[in-house]
Amino acid sequence: MKKSLGRKTLVTPTPVWVVGTYDADGKANIMTAAWAGICCSKPPSVCVSLREATYTYQSIVDRGAFTVNLPTVEQAVAADYAGIATGREADKFAVAGLTAERAGEVDAPIVAELPLNVECKLIHTLKIGLHTLFVGEIVDVQADEEILGEKDRPLLDKLRPFVFATTEATYRAIGEPIGPAFELGKALIGPE
Amino acid sequence: MKKSLGRKTLVTPTPVWVVGTYDADGKANIMTAAWAGICCSKPPSVCVSLREATYTYQSIVDRGAFTVNLPTVEQAVAADYAGIATGREADKFAVAGLTAERAGEVDAPIVAELPLNVECKLIHTLKIGLHTLFVGEIVDVQADEEILGEKDRPLLDKLRPFVFATTEATYRAIGEPIGPAFELGKALIGPE
Repeated sequence: MKKSLGRKTLVTPTPVWVVGTYDADGKANIMTAAWAGICCSKPPSVCVSLREATYTYQSIVDRGAFTVNLPTVEQAVAADYAGIATGREADKFAVAGLTAERAGEVDAPIVAELPLNVECKLIHTLKIGLHTLFVGEIVDVQADEEILGEKDRPLLDKLRPFVFATTEATYRAIGEPIGPAFELGKALIGPE
Repeated sequence: MKKSLGRKTLVTPTPVWVVGTYDADGKANIMTAAWAGICCSKPPSVCVSLREATYTYQSIVDRGAFTVNLPTVEQAVAADYAGIATGREADKFAVAGLTAERAGEVDAPIVAELPLNVECKLIHTLKIGLHTLFVGEIVDVQADEEILGEKDRPLLDKLRPFVFATTEATYRAIGEPIGPAFELGKALIGPE
């Protein structure tokens, strides 16, 4: 039996991405976003939605660039901190013990200690309501060599990302394999 | 040591959402999307990016509505199938053994057997490139009563969603708890 829960963002899970920017003074800042995802394959693009009140918002508008950095489960405290504190008051890199390094292709910092860094050039801005959606074209991805498998694909079990369980406001690790995508469903398609 | 991997959508994980629509003839159809996420809290909204070549694309444009339905790990075969086959040729609901029910608030079908159904009204369309991003305002969420915990919050361990591990093209379950969001990071903030 279904029950109506109303107009709520009760859908899950979402990623936990640490967004890196430079502010007007060139100070490197991070904030954590979960209203985010991949949004285009060509050009490869991600979207990140932020409230206009965040310090990061203006930095993205001013610089036309940001990075997405993937924390591992061991970095959950730092990632959660970056989502609580504001770059207006805190030097979040310093407090979290993280290192800002200038991205190679865009005007934004990457987080050196995080194993996967995605450099994004702002290509669209869509004001939705409380949140504004920024689309960033991926101009480079950098990864720790230790997390790479065959054909330089990042391995989940080495990357060890985690997700935001929206409906419970908790973080959860990635669990057991369910099966290969674009293969499992073939069981329902008869022989040609 | 970081290695540059180039311009690729190598960021992970993404959700696995089954998108429900009616076509021009009123036939219910589903497709599975992973380039998707929550994109605004007020109004509560999700975004789903689709290629214009998909059958679902035109249905969303025509009807101005879609649903997002969350499959459990037990429904991974059906969900993967819905991402492989096309509604132009197949009756995907029938092949997957699923039931289309008219949504209460929008002109789109929900998938009865999937435990969480999100009804969305199209409010923005943003053409990015190969993919077009659709923003749907959430006008209702319906959930199986058995998956609801305190305050009618869907419980992850009953919902049992899974994610698309982009970099490996596999599906993965949700794993162990890492900790509470907006709490873990307080360890880095000193007493006021």
